[in-house]
Amino acid sequence: MVTNGKDFVKEVTPRDEDFSQWYLDLVLKTEMMDYAPVRGCMAIRPYGYAIWENIQQLLDKRIKATGHKNAYFPLFIPESLLQKEADHVEGFAPEVALVTHGGDEKLTERLVVRPTSEAIICSMYARWIQSYRDLPLLINQWCNVVRWEKSTRPFLRTSEFLWQEGHTVHSTEEEAEEEALKMLGVYKEFAETELAIPVISGLKTESEKFAGALRTYTIEALMADGRALQAGTSHNLGQHFSRVFDIQFLDKDKQLKYAWQTSWGVSSRLIGAIIMVHGDDRGLKLPPRVAPVQVVVVPIITKKQRKEVLERVREFADEFSGEIRIEVDDREEYSAGWKFNEWEMKGVPLRLEVGPRDLSQGGVTAVRRDTGEKFFINEKELPKRLPALLDDIQSNLFKQALEFREKNTYSVDDYEKFKDIVQEKRGFILSPWCGDPGCEEGIKNDTKATIRCIPFAAEPSEDALCLFCGQKNSKPVYFARAY
Amino acid sequence: MVTNGKDFVKEVTPRDEDFSQWYLDLVLKTEMMDYAPVRGCMAIRPYGYAIWENIQQLLDKRIKATGHKNAYFPLFIPESLLQKEADHVEGFAPEVALVTHGGDEKLTERLVVRPTSEAIICSMYARWIQSYRDLPLLINQWCNVVRWEKSTRPFLRTSEFLWQEGHTVHSTEEEAEEEALKMLGVYKEFAETELAIPVISGLKTESEKFAGALRTYTIEALMADGRALQAGTSHNLGQHFSRVFDIQFLDKDKQLKYAWQTSWGVSSRLIGAIIMVHGDDRGLKLPPRVAPVQVVVVPIITKKQRKEVLERVREFADEFSGEIRIEVDDREEYSAGWKFNEWEMKGVPLRLEVGPRDLSQGGVTAVRRDTGEKFFINEKELPKRLPALLDDIQSNLFKQALEFREKNTYSVDDYEKFKDIVQEKRGFILSPWCGDPGCEEGIKNDTKATIRCIPFAAEPSEDALCLFCGQKNSKPVYFARAY
Repeated sequence: MVTNGKDFVKEVTPRDEDFSQWYLDLVLKTEMMDYAPVRGCMAIRPYGYAIWENIQQLLDKRIKATGHKNAYFPLFIPESLLQKEADHVEGFAPEVALVTHGGDEKLTERLVVRPTSEAIICSMYARWIQSYRDLPLLINQWCNVVRWEKSTRPFLRTSEFLWQEGHTVHSTEEEAEEEALKMLGVYKEFAETELAIPVISGLKTESEKFAGALRTYTIEALMADGRALQAGTSHNLGQHFSRVFDIQFLDKDKQLKYAWQTSWGVSSRLIGAIIMVHGDDRGLKLPPRVAPVQVVVVPIITKKQRKEVLERVREFADEFSGEIRIEVDDREEYSAGWKFNEWEMKGVPLRLEVGPRDLSQGGVTAVRRDTGEKFFINEKELPKRLPALLDDIQSNLFKQALEFREKNTYSVDDYEKFKDIVQEKRGFILSPWCGDPGCEEGIKNDTKATIRCIPFAAEPSEDALCLFCGQKNSKPVYFARAY
Repeated sequence: MVTNGKDFVKEVTPRDEDFSQWYLDLVLKTEMMDYAPVRGCMAIRPYGYAIWENIQQLLDKRIKATGHKNAYFPLFIPESLLQKEADHVEGFAPEVALVTHGGDEKLTERLVVRPTSEAIICSMYARWIQSYRDLPLLINQWCNVVRWEKSTRPFLRTSEFLWQEGHTVHSTEEEAEEEALKMLGVYKEFAETELAIPVISGLKTESEKFAGALRTYTIEALMADGRALQAGTSHNLGQHFSRVFDIQFLDKDKQLKYAWQTSWGVSSRLIGAIIMVHGDDRGLKLPPRVAPVQVVVVPIITKKQRKEVLERVREFADEFSGEIRIEVDDREEYSAGWKFNEWEMKGVPLRLEVGPRDLSQGGVTAVRRDTGEKFFINEKELPKRLPALLDDIQSNLFKQALEFREKNTYSVDDYEKFKDIVQEKRGFILSPWCGDPGCEEGIKNDTKATIRCIPFAAEPSEDALCLFCGQKNSKPVYFARAY
C-alpha cells in the first residue's frame, strides 16, 4: 500500500490531542507490536523486539560485571509453593494463570504460571545453600512472566511480559541491603546512559512495596504526558523468604542462620518508557544506543544517475555496518519523501540522503531526528562524524528529557495547590508526608496521585507539615499520577 | 564439603558401566542442572545455562546473517487455534499443558501453553501478509515451550525446555524448500563447527515427520553409547498452515495465493548432546567454543611463595579475560589436586598450573582436557599459544567424535546381522528400505531401531533389497536406536 508521506503521518493521532491514542497508534504503525488473539497478550514484532535485544545486551553486561550469572528456572510453580510466604501469595494470587491439566490428565496439584520467581527459586536455593562458602549466591534470569491484568496496554502492562529478575542470597543483612542498592544504582545508570531516560530513585512506601519484600527501592521516570512510570525495582527481601523456604547456612561461627535475600527486575515496559519519554507528533525518537537502526540511508534517485546513486548507498552499508546499525532503504516502490516520513516515524536517529548533488559534492546530506537539523557531511569525515553524531543525539535526548522533568517537577506544601497541579499539569510533586498510610491513601483517593518514592536524602523537618493531616516533622516525598 | 580428588570422581558412575547413570551423575555433580519440584521440569544452573548462552550467541549470529529477525509471540495459544491444522493437533494435543483459570476466574476458552508456535504465529502472519512485497517473511524466536512428556531426562526431554523456532513465509514452493534446506545446512555447520558434533542430515520418514509438515529434514548425531539423537529439524510446511490460517497474498500477477511456509528449531537438548558425544569417565569434555570456562588457572601454593604465585595468577585473568573465558581458581579451602579433578569433571578444555617452579622457569604448566597431555609454555608464548591450543582442542574433539561415528556406522543388507548390531553395538546402520511404513514399523517393533533419516544422496538400486520385506529397488537409509 503506497501512500504519500503526509497521509502516513496523518494516521497517527497528535500527541497533545490524545496521548494514549498517540501511543497506541505509534506502537501499531511502527510495527513494534500487534495484538494477539489471547486476552491482554501481544506479539512483539521485529522492530520492537530489536529494542528489547539491545536492552538485554546492554543490561546483561552490567549484571555480569557486578558478579551475577544467568540461569533458568521453571515456568510453573506448584500452587503450594506460592502460598508459603503470606504477603507474597496475597499480592500475586489474584492475578495468576493456573494450569490444571497436563497431557490429557487433571493435575493433582494446580500449577501457577510464574508471575515472578521468588517461590520456585527459593525452593531450589534451599537445596543449594549449606555453608557461608556458598554465599553470596548471585543469579539472574531473563524470561517471560504472566500476570492476569484487568486492563492492559502494549509494553506497559500486558498479561505476559518479558523481563529479567535477579535473585541473590547473602550471609548478612548489610550485604543484602548493599546489593539491593547497588542494583538500583545499576538500573539508574543504565536507564540514563542507554535509554536517555532520567530517573529519580528512592524507597517505596509500605503500600507500594513488592508483595513479600522488607523494603522496595524504585527508579521512576516522567513520561511526556506528566505521568510517572515505575521503570525498575530492587527489593531487600530480608529473611521473609528464607524463613518460609528454610534457606539456612552454617556460618563461620558454626551457627545455623537464615540467609538474607534480594530480588530486582526491569521489564519490556522500558520499551514503553522510551516511546513515552522521547516521542513526538512525527513519531518515535529512539536513543541511538538502543535503536534497531541507528542510521538510515535513503537514495535520491533520478533517471540519469540511478545506477551511480544506488551503488554508492550500497557501499555505505558495507563500510559502516561493523560499527553502526545502518540500513539502506533502496525499495523502489516508495518515494524518497514517503521514506523520510516512515523512518522519522520509526524514530531512526540519523538519516543520510544521497542524491546526484550530494555525489557531485562528495558527501551526503544528514538529518537529525532529535532536532530536525539538516546539514552536509563530506565523505571523508563520515567515519568520525557518524559515531560522534550518534553520541550527540543520545546526550541531547537525555538533556531534553531532563529539562522536561525539571520543568515538570514541583515543590508544594499546600494541598489545594497540589490538587490543581495533579489535575492540570501533572508531573512530579515533592510534598511533605507524615508517613501515615492513611494520609497516603487519602491523597490517592482525592487525586489519584500516589507516592512514587521517598527520596534517599529526604529528612523530616519541623516546619514540613503533612500535605493531608498537617502533622509536623514530615518528609518530602515524590507524588505523581502513574501508569 | 572438602573431599579429596579421588572421592570426588568416584561419585560419578563409570560411563561404560551405566551410561544413563553416568549422564545423570554428571549433570548434577557439575551443577549444570537440578531437579525442580515440578514434574519433568529442571532448573538450569549457571554452569549449564552459560553453555546455552554461548549456543544462543553463536547460532543467533548465523540466523541473523541469513536474513532473519527475532520477535516474540505469546506463550498461550487458544485451544481453537491449535485445533485448526488436523495433523498438528493430533500430534500435539496429547502432550499439552492447559491453562483453565486466569485472575481467579474460569476462562471461557482454555489456553494451551505453547508446545511449538505455528498456530499462534500463523494467526498473526495472516494479518501481516497481504502482498508479495511482504514476502519473504523471515522471523525467529528464542523462548520456552512445554510438552507434557511421560518420561523425562535432563536436557534431552523435559516438560519445559528452551529453544529457538524459525517461522518463515514465502511466495513459492521452491523458495520454501530452499529455505528449509538452507537452515538445515546452518544447523549442520553450527553443530560441527561450534559443538564439535558431526551430524548426518537427510529427510525424515512420514511417520517421523513434524505434525503438520509436508516434509521434515533433520540432523542426527551419534552419542557415545551408540544411540542417535535428533539434534535439529527443519520443516517444509507446504501450504498446510497457510490454508487453514488463511495466509494469502496478492502476487505480482494479481492473483491471490496461499503462501508457502517453513519452520525449524534446535533446543537446549543440544547441551545433552555435547555431554553424551564428548564426555568420558573423568567427566565433561566441553568444546572450547561453547565452554563457559575455556581456561582455568590453578595456583600451586607453597608457604614460601604464596604471595608471588597468587599475584601472578591474578594477573593472568586480567591479561587474557578480553579474548578468552578464563577463570582463576584461588579458593583457599581446596587443594590443587582437588581442583584439578573438579575442573576436569567440569570439562574445562585447558588447565594452567602455576607454581614456584613454573615461576622460576618463566612460564606455566598446561594440561589439555581432551588428551591429558601436560607441557610447559613459556610466558611470552601464551598470547599466541592459548587461542591456538583452544582451536586445536576444538578440532580434535570433532575429529574424535567423527572417528567414533565412522567406527560405529555399519552398512548392512542382512536383517539378522542388523538385529545383532542393534542389540550389541548400536551405532548408525545404513540399510535398504522399500519406503513402506509397514516395514519401518516392523523393524521398530522387532529392534526398537527407527529410521533416523533418508540421506539426500540415497538412490534406489535394483539389487538393494528391503531389510524387512526383501523388495527390490530399495533405498539405503540410516537406522539407529534413538533418544
